[in-house]
Amino acid sequence: MIRIVIAGPRGRMGREAVSLVHDTKHFELVAVVDRVNEGKTLAQLDGFPAIEAPIFTDLERCLQTVQADVLIDLTTPEVGKRHAEIALHYGVRPVVGTTGFTEDDLTRLTQVAEEKKIGAIIAPNFAIGAILMMKFAQMAAKYFPHVEIIELHHDQKLDAPSGTALKTAQLIQQVRPSFTQGHEAEKETMEGARGALYDGMRIHSVRLPGLVAHQEVIFGGDGQTLTIRHDSFHRSSFMSGVRFSVETVMKLETLVYGLEHLIE
Amino acid sequence: MIRIVIAGPRGRMGREAVSLVHDTKHFELVAVVDRVNEGKTLAQLDGFPAIEAPIFTDLERCLQTVQADVLIDLTTPEVGKRHAEIALHYGVRPVVGTTGFTEDDLTRLTQVAEEKKIGAIIAPNFAIGAILMMKFAQMAAKYFPHVEIIELHHDQKLDAPSGTALKTAQLIQQVRPSFTQGHEAEKETMEGARGALYDGMRIHSVRLPGLVAHQEVIFGGDGQTLTIRHDSFHRSSFMSGVRFSVETVMKLETLVYGLEHLIE
Amino acid sequence: MIRIVIAGPRGRMGREAVSLVHDTKHFELVAVVDRVNEGKTLAQLDGFPAIEAPIFTDLERCLQTVQADVLIDLTTPEVGKRHAEIALHYGVRPVVGTTGFTEDDLTRLTQVAEEKKIGAIIAPNFAIGAILMMKFAQMAAKYFPHVEIIELHHDQKLDAPSGTALKTAQLIQQVRPSFTQGHEAEKETMEGARGALYDGMRIHSVRLPGLVAHQEVIFGGDGQTLTIRHDSFHRSSFMSGVRFSVETVMKLETLVYGLEHLIE
Amino acid sequence: MIRIVIAGPRGRMGREAVSLVHDTKHFELVAVVDRVNEGKTLAQLDGFPAIEAPIFTDLERCLQTVQADVLIDLTTPEVGKRHAEIALHYGVRPVVGTTGFTEDDLTRLTQVAEEKKIGAIIAPNFAIGAILMMKFAQMAAKYFPHVEIIELHHDQKLDAPSGTALKTAQLIQQVRPSFTQGHEAEKETMEGARGALYDGMRIHSVRLPGLVAHQEVIFGGDGQTLTIRHDSFHRSSFMSGVRFSVETVMKLETLVYGLEHLIE
Repeated sequence: MIRIVIAGPRGRMGREAVSLVHDTKHFELVAVVDRVNEGKTLAQLDGFPAIEAPIFTDLERCLQTVQADVLIDLTTPEVGKRHAEIALHYGVRPVVGTTGFTEDDLTRLTQVAEEKKIGAIIAPNFAIGAILMMKFAQMAAKYFPHVEIIELHHDQKLDAPSGTALKTAQLIQQVRPSFTQGHEAEKETMEGARGALYDGMRIHSVRLPGLVAHQEVIFGGDGQTLTIRHDSFHRSSFMSGVRFSVETVMKLETLVYGLEHLIE
Repeated sequence: MIRIVIAGPRGRMGREAVSLVHDTKHFELVAVVDRVNEGKTLAQLDGFPAIEAPIFTDLERCLQTVQADVLIDLTTPEVGKRHAEIALHYGVRPVVGTTGFTEDDLTRLTQVAEEKKIGAIIAPNFAIGAILMMKFAQMAAKYFPHVEIIELHHDQKLDAPSGTALKTAQLIQQVRPSFTQGHEAEKETMEGARGALYDGMRIHSVRLPGLVAHQEVIFGGDGQTLTIRHDSFHRSSFMSGVRFSVETVMKLETLVYGLEHLIE
Repeated sequence: MIRIVIAGPRGRMGREAVSLVHDTKHFELVAVVDRVNEGKTLAQLDGFPAIEAPIFTDLERCLQTVQADVLIDLTTPEVGKRHAEIALHYGVRPVVGTTGFTEDDLTRLTQVAEEKKIGAIIAPNFAIGAILMMKFAQMAAKYFPHVEIIELHHDQKLDAPSGTALKTAQLIQQVRPSFTQGHEAEKETMEGARGALYDGMRIHSVRLPGLVAHQEVIFGGDGQTLTIRHDSFHRSSFMSGVRFSVETVMKLETLVYGLEHLIE
Repeated sequence: MIRIVIAGPRGRMGREAVSLVHDTKHFELVAVVDRVNEGKTLAQLDGFPAIEAPIFTDLERCLQTVQADVLIDLTTPEVGKRHAEIALHYGVRPVVGTTGFTEDDLTRLTQVAEEKKIGAIIAPNFAIGAILMMKFAQMAAKYFPHVEIIELHHDQKLDAPSGTALKTAQLIQQVRPSFTQGHEAEKETMEGARGALYDGMRIHSVRLPGLVAHQEVIFGGDGQTLTIRHDSFHRSSFMSGVRFSVETVMKLETLVYGLEHLIE
């Protein structure tokens, strides 16, 4: 049984995390940290399952009171940073889903984690499916240097291409010899048909109502194609990453930044 | 049993047509018309099945000699035009897979077909799957005006977008209210990411080795998408169209130009 | 501008319908009919946009008070039936999303609609994307009799195959010559690999967490495949059907049962 | 420049390999070994490019005469085994595409390769796209234990599921906790709908004319799916694997059996 404290339980991510811990047999929610409701329990709040976890407004007091193994922090960058430090000090492994850590922050926290011989995970992106897609894409590019990326999102998205598409292209670029794909005499009879050019690869952005967040990486070789596709239908998609992080942080004795470094 | 003459049996299309007729139970190959080998039979030629169909170098002499219901013509535009005329004159229904007919040609041939009360089909494109895709796309656009087209071809293709993608967009345009899709504040951080713009719709062209000829038309609406996809893996893909044309021409009493007008 | 009354605004479907009418320029919400809150306006209820539409608990009084063109009814079978009758009586076109109408009901209501020379639509399924998929599948089966259906749903679904998959197979069966697909010496080395058999066609049911409701109909022919796919990501997917029905019912002078009869 | 001898140039695979070497800038075809045509050159044979590579009927004489770096062997199991031994003896790196090596064979050949400090690759399957698909599937299963496999082949295939589908399931099984997927009260209203059961996973086999050889592995998790798909359109699809093997064998100092052990 892994004893867990969640900071930020009322946010969209926090609510999903409460459900996750509640629904996972070997996880136990022992307390939550929130800005309000000190002294109540989670069960007393609207829209939460009947978990008798006490609510604290201060993480230190919380960790002095309950026995915990892991802190899941889904607050803000500043709070997350402070919470990570406090948790490590109390021997509790932080799993932090916020960004905003500097190199210095990471160095200092790593040092503390290693002194305490406990794990810590800071993950700007918990969507483990997207992380696997990017990792596989990079692996495949060594053998199939011809590749195009199609990302598809709802039509309220403002920027094209998506951040994930760009990051995928960057990861591929690290292993792919630089060259321009397609026939050298290739011609666009309509401007933009061949998509955006990134170091010789092409990226296409589809925007349609009904879509959520999807990406397809297609590799072409002699007589074959290899396609890696990630479909994110709902924000709960980051939950596999949280569960994996909680389980993994128990086995670490240092800090890891980014789930991609934990996937074998 | 439908008795068939094939003109142009040694071309790539012609060979596929011979196989088709041979493999279809209610089809019978009664003769072929070719530039050479008068007096031999198909069985005597390299690379053909053992069909004892006589070879003629002249269509008139052929039709004076054998009883036929349908002529499948897979020759050249000029020959195809002449053959259509001769076939109709002998009461044989032409199924012609070449282009190059003028409006005048079509008017004249239609008149002959209607006088003779027999069918005639002239089809610039026999790929019935592609024709269905375009037809369905046009039908769907009435209900889902938000649509993007992704066409994917081998990387030796020179032009982008493909002719089929453009034709699909034109057919959709006939029924779709004209408007520009995507968020009005949408911004390409990399030029071309959003593809080519055709009357507010987007067209994307993927080119990769290994691909053959594929197209996907994606419609988006509230909480849903509808996708129509055609994959052509091999030139035999036009054979469904030839088979359909042979069966349909037996029931017509006029000339039809383009298979799209025969599909209900 | 089409003036609309919505019955059942607080249900899941009803809420979506309120949003739809609110977001559509040429639609105007003139009143709602609900079991409670007589005398209030929709704007006074929690979770609704600021629309000053009066709330009535009785449809007759509502239609005596406001001028309306269309009634969207998303209540229960019994209420829906009664509402359809009342609406027609007041010259208001009903668009009803409930089931439970008998043949007699339909005959009687059709008669009233035709006397009044106004339209009425009763639609057991508003998911227009799914209806188009089924229609296209039936059309394609005439030309491509080899077909398999893959339906994919979340893993909490109890029955396999889905109702939509079965209905698709039935519609295809109406036009497809009956025969068993696959090689006659085909052999399952693991039982069930080839899916369920329906009049010679195969149906496959995939169940995975993360999926919502999806179906793919794949047609195979010489050297090609044609695929029709519907993805439903959210219950708002029925909204295209409601919008279409409201627009269409204005042009009808009879009752139509099932959106499939309105799609050309 | 890598100097290459090809054994078995007139087989289907052999012809593709000749094209590959001819089309690759840093590859040079210095000789071929065949059962006939000693003393001629490849250019003198029908259907080959104009390469003046001499033809030998005996590998030993060939390697005594020409300077070679790599032998690509696409013959038969017995010949391939003998050729591997001879090539290593002459300090030429064998890349062998046949099966039939026993454990003893592999041990002995490994010993020779390591003494000579040169590489050797024996690959029962050169389709690198399929190998990557299986490798990625195994990796993903650690994070997404819910998985179904859909394999799609032409309808002349006799067995279902395919060997690749079964091998994929076995590889996944090695890392996936054993459990039965789907709802426990799940019910097939039509037998076989849920596919074949392999250790709790489901495998579905689609057979349609037009298809070639395709496989899709779909992983489902909270609010997301991850899909890995391989499409093989043509037998040239094994060529990426041959090219990769030739390049890799130059850097090895031992024997490797199976390309999956070379992919990082």
